[in-house]
Amino acid sequence: MSAPAFVNANNEPFRLTPSTRIRRSPFYQATVAAGAQSFTVYNHMLMPTGYGDPDAEYWRLLNTVSMWDVAVERQIELCGPDAMRLAQLLVPRKLDRLRPGVGWYVPVCDHRGTLINDPILLKLSEERCWFSIADGDLASFARTIGAERGLDVRVTEPDVSPLAIQGPLAEDVTACLFGDKVRSIKHFHFRDLDLDGMSLKVARSGWSKQGGFELYLQDGSLGTELWNRVALAGASFGIGPGTPNPSERIESGLLSWGGDTDDQTNPFEVRMSRFVDLDAPDEVLSIRALRAIHADGPKRHQLGVLLGNDAPYPTTDLWCTVQAGNTALGAVTATAWSPRIERNIGLALVSRAAAPGDPVEVTLPDGRAINGELCRVPFL
Amino acid sequence: MSAPAFVNANNEPFRLTPSTRIRRSPFYQATVAAGAQSFTVYNHMLMPTGYGDPDAEYWRLLNTVSMWDVAVERQIELCGPDAMRLAQLLVPRKLDRLRPGVGWYVPVCDHRGTLINDPILLKLSEERCWFSIADGDLASFARTIGAERGLDVRVTEPDVSPLAIQGPLAEDVTACLFGDKVRSIKHFHFRDLDLDGMSLKVARSGWSKQGGFELYLQDGSLGTELWNRVALAGASFGIGPGTPNPSERIESGLLSWGGDTDDQTNPFEVRMSRFVDLDAPDEVLSIRALRAIHADGPKRHQLGVLLGNDAPYPTTDLWCTVQAGNTALGAVTATAWSPRIERNIGLALVSRAAAPGDPVEVTLPDGRAINGELCRVPFL
Repeated sequence: MSAPAFVNANNEPFRLTPSTRIRRSPFYQATVAAGAQSFTVYNHMLMPTGYGDPDAEYWRLLNTVSMWDVAVERQIELCGPDAMRLAQLLVPRKLDRLRPGVGWYVPVCDHRGTLINDPILLKLSEERCWFSIADGDLASFARTIGAERGLDVRVTEPDVSPLAIQGPLAEDVTACLFGDKVRSIKHFHFRDLDLDGMSLKVARSGWSKQGGFELYLQDGSLGTELWNRVALAGASFGIGPGTPNPSERIESGLLSWGGDTDDQTNPFEVRMSRFVDLDAPDEVLSIRALRAIHADGPKRHQLGVLLGNDAPYPTTDLWCTVQAGNTALGAVTATAWSPRIERNIGLALVSRAAAPGDPVEVTLPDGRAINGELCRVPFL
Repeated sequence: MSAPAFVNANNEPFRLTPSTRIRRSPFYQATVAAGAQSFTVYNHMLMPTGYGDPDAEYWRLLNTVSMWDVAVERQIELCGPDAMRLAQLLVPRKLDRLRPGVGWYVPVCDHRGTLINDPILLKLSEERCWFSIADGDLASFARTIGAERGLDVRVTEPDVSPLAIQGPLAEDVTACLFGDKVRSIKHFHFRDLDLDGMSLKVARSGWSKQGGFELYLQDGSLGTELWNRVALAGASFGIGPGTPNPSERIESGLLSWGGDTDDQTNPFEVRMSRFVDLDAPDEVLSIRALRAIHADGPKRHQLGVLLGNDAPYPTTDLWCTVQAGNTALGAVTATAWSPRIERNIGLALVSRAAAPGDPVEVTLPDGRAINGELCRVPFL
């Protein structure tokens, strides 16, 4: 399996043109030195997507431990007396029980109830929190609501860049760096820890289901130093460079906001119902719209789809149509070869009329019509 | 001069990984067939940045005519009784004299007076307008203000994709397609015109100073057809594929929002003072902040910088520091080789203490310190 790429008419990979509109990560030099071969652009920033050997990167995440530059998960900081009030306006989940030192996965929805981001909300104190965001401009949204409501809060994007350590041995690597105290950090909890004077927040989190930590670097000039420290600590555990993994994340049912969603998607459609409190305060921007959508019943839902097992399909950048007979059901929003299931799998955003177990036809961008079967997610 | 690219540790171009987060343009297939070799990501969409011969592409734009996929200039539509009222809230320029059929270059500023986009605002009717945007999420911003203020307006991103025809022969090509009536379209004015049943808006506009038109396609399924029609009409004029040109746009002093600006930049700093009316209505979101900034005096301004003439510098994705002696002045935000001036030139965002004619030192990302001289823009 070679690394996928957008290609020109001669099937050669496109060049990605340097531009000051597209920022580097603090870990950029280190990832290039580590052999990064492919990238994407996310939050106006480069993110490595592969080091040239997708198979090895997948199994490393599954069997040992992998380190990822996820600095593109920018932090949007709300700071001031009204910080948590503004956070609550943006999030249809009751935040009164969120304590400092804890992160929650939350939907951020606009007045229509549309999902405009799916960040982790880290509460730093009663007057300060970070949204660790997906690929969308949450800073402008938060700042605008704060200003419109006359709130006493400052919205910034501080110099904070997460480095993820993921995989079954991630805890051992992280304990090597910070001591055994990290073993008691609960899922989505975080602590301020020090690495020879480098100030980090260490959270048990990450965009995989293989377990692990994210180290929030708070000084971009130290990116290479942190990368090298983690690589060194992980060497005896077999650590190697990796990235958010397209196969593992589909197997695990992790949402890619902007990839699996469109500009009409609400949280009920993409398995986020348990993160919506319909009795959240009335002042939450989206709560009236979400109550109405919930009462009407959402029109779509996210399911998995099991596809062919002959050979991996090319990675597609297009949504693929899904139908049953002549009935259009919606779209497959992402596909990948699953090395564990040994077939192609995908995530589908389809009509509520479609259910797990239904046979469907999926049309790949190359025109092939593939027979598949809808299923529940996660796959594994 | 070869096409610039982000490169790996072996100096090979990075691959750009396909993702459903990154959309294709309706002209994508046509640009690939025409030989597109390099791309950027802009408004979560692919945009061609080169066809493999930067010199030829520059001179084609200067001497004959070039056709560009600029579908990434997404249109944000405001529609409804309060459409123009919402537009006015977002724009610190008095819009009461903007007539249907005319586009204006406008700053969009937030409550802090910060420039959050620099679109063309096309007024379609008294109840409908489009912002033809730079690389930032204006839809969410506009929709949020509309909702917070309870305005009767719908904010959408319709299926509209501009194709630019630029260069001294652009008018002839456009007249071949639509007839001589396009010759009377004034700068930034637009008309609804038909191309054998294909409904287009034709504007005299474009991100170059070489003259030309933008054809606003309103049905994405017809992208290849429109591209091919333009290529055919332009064949006898020497038309060829091109892109927004990094050299010509610096020579001409055209702003790249997000590249030449940061998250603190106000319109006075980047030569947009003439598009700010300080006596705009008080309800304009940014007007109080802009009046205060204007009264205090902006802290920075945008100038040009003349650099070395020995050989083109590598295209940089990093801002370069500018100093005079030991005094830090700011940053060069973009550089390019100017084939007409026959030296490297750049745009600089520097302290008001710096003035045209000042000698400065610019530190390139490769560490070289270059002597330069500040100057006014445009260069040509």
